[in-house]
Amino acid sequence: MLFLIGLGFGDCKDITVRGLEAVRQSSKVYLEAYTSILTVGAEELEKYYGKSIIQADRSFVEQKCVVGDPLAATTHSDLILRARKMGVKTQVIHNASIMNAVGCCGLQLYSFGETVSIVLWQDNWKPTSYYDKIASNRRAGLHTLCLLDIKIKEQSWENLARARDIFEPPRFMRVYEAAQQLIDILDIRSAEGATADSLAYSANSLAVGLARVGTDSQQIAAGSLRQLADSELTLGKPLHSLVLPSEKLHPLEWDMLEIYAIDENWFSENKSRYVKD
Amino acid sequence: MLFLIGLGFGDCKDITVRGLEAVRQSSKVYLEAYTSILTVGAEELEKYYGKSIIQADRSFVEQKCVVGDPLAATTHSDLILRARKMGVKTQVIHNASIMNAVGCCGLQLYSFGETVSIVLWQDNWKPTSYYDKIASNRRAGLHTLCLLDIKIKEQSWENLARARDIFEPPRFMRVYEAAQQLIDILDIRSAEGATADSLAYSANSLAVGLARVGTDSQQIAAGSLRQLADSELTLGKPLHSLVLPSEKLHPLEWDMLEIYAIDENWFSENKSRYVKD
Repeated sequence: MLFLIGLGFGDCKDITVRGLEAVRQSSKVYLEAYTSILTVGAEELEKYYGKSIIQADRSFVEQKCVVGDPLAATTHSDLILRARKMGVKTQVIHNASIMNAVGCCGLQLYSFGETVSIVLWQDNWKPTSYYDKIASNRRAGLHTLCLLDIKIKEQSWENLARARDIFEPPRFMRVYEAAQQLIDILDIRSAEGATADSLAYSANSLAVGLARVGTDSQQIAAGSLRQLADSELTLGKPLHSLVLPSEKLHPLEWDMLEIYAIDENWFSENKSRYVKD
Repeated sequence: MLFLIGLGFGDCKDITVRGLEAVRQSSKVYLEAYTSILTVGAEELEKYYGKSIIQADRSFVEQKCVVGDPLAATTHSDLILRARKMGVKTQVIHNASIMNAVGCCGLQLYSFGETVSIVLWQDNWKPTSYYDKIASNRRAGLHTLCLLDIKIKEQSWENLARARDIFEPPRFMRVYEAAQQLIDILDIRSAEGATADSLAYSANSLAVGLARVGTDSQQIAAGSLRQLADSELTLGKPLHSLVLPSEKLHPLEWDMLEIYAIDENWFSENKSRYVKD
């Protein structure tokens, strides 16, 4: 039996009881650590499980334990299909993932559209295609969850060219960087001739930054994109995610977000734009 | 402290270790049982937790334990806001919900659009508004998760009028009913003048039925909407959900769905419609 076990995203104890039993009865335990990051070290997990853990990276896809919920990415479908071909039964033990835990900010899960990924721009590579998905969600009155880039085990061109096993330090995109990028895209689109009215949002649109969701140090900050872009120090360490809510909110959604206001005055001044009386 | 604890959706052991510890340290434990249903009885939970449980229905909103993930519905936002006003701290302990566990069928979570709810039609009330949301998702190349109606503690008009505390037996919409309703809507739209080409899908479109996701008796069936509508007995007991995938699939998505084919011939014949070579 191949178990695919979601670990949630807090500490050792965010595994389900069923998942913990499966880990403890398994002969080998692999930790998949490249589609996300853990907030605890593998050593802590080993101590808690009473099992030694084999860490799996991208080049080692026989992984088993998975941060968040196991089936968010194709990697795990591929694993299941390969196991079936070998006659190995599989069982998935689900857990929370950012795709549902994002509800902690107070926005309704049912009102989210397509999730987008925002990548760290490089000098020669500045993809903006997710802008159109955000625009499409907003036209449909939907919130957009933006997952922020994670670069793990990346190699510089030089090290790659020379086949040197030297990796760059891991990089995790922060909310302030993503918010600035969203604003920069507006400038790019404007320069391309888009009128202010036709843009999907503005620097003064409501946005919500989330950090370390589901952990004891979880933080949420809500305000305009500009405020989030200017709040480099507000949300602390990774992992971060960003939500661009729709243009109309349920009053309870607004009230929940107000708890996390960067600037309460901004909330008072902008309420009528977002909530119908 | 008010904990809002997700129970997942299998049995007692789908609670997280952190959640179980919170239940055991709480002085009162409420079970919220109207926004979903549990697959285990409250008595089993009581035995497992070593705690007595107070069942909360719609008229009793001080609930605490929540099937799935706690923050999918506004009810729980309301609870958090009320607790804050009373100076009570709150903590959410997340868990899997159908919104992410739907990935078990092999479709990519990132490719889902807005989630829709399909309600059981009544003689005088046949809402079809979710059709437009499905159409909008399909235009954007996105899958649609359809949550199926749950009627708990409903009263007949007569009992309601006479203020009698008599409730109808609970009803849970099944996949075959939802599939038939989706086909019926096509007829309604056609009768209203829509051409076959302009319809968002057809009775021969790929659909996926899911039953009791995350439990030991989980079942998945994939085929055309027509095949699902004709498969009354295939998926067994509630809870059911239905997915209408987008018109183009990742090859691995197709391969995963094929595992659950109602009719393998249909999959062979229709592969080229859904997967680019």
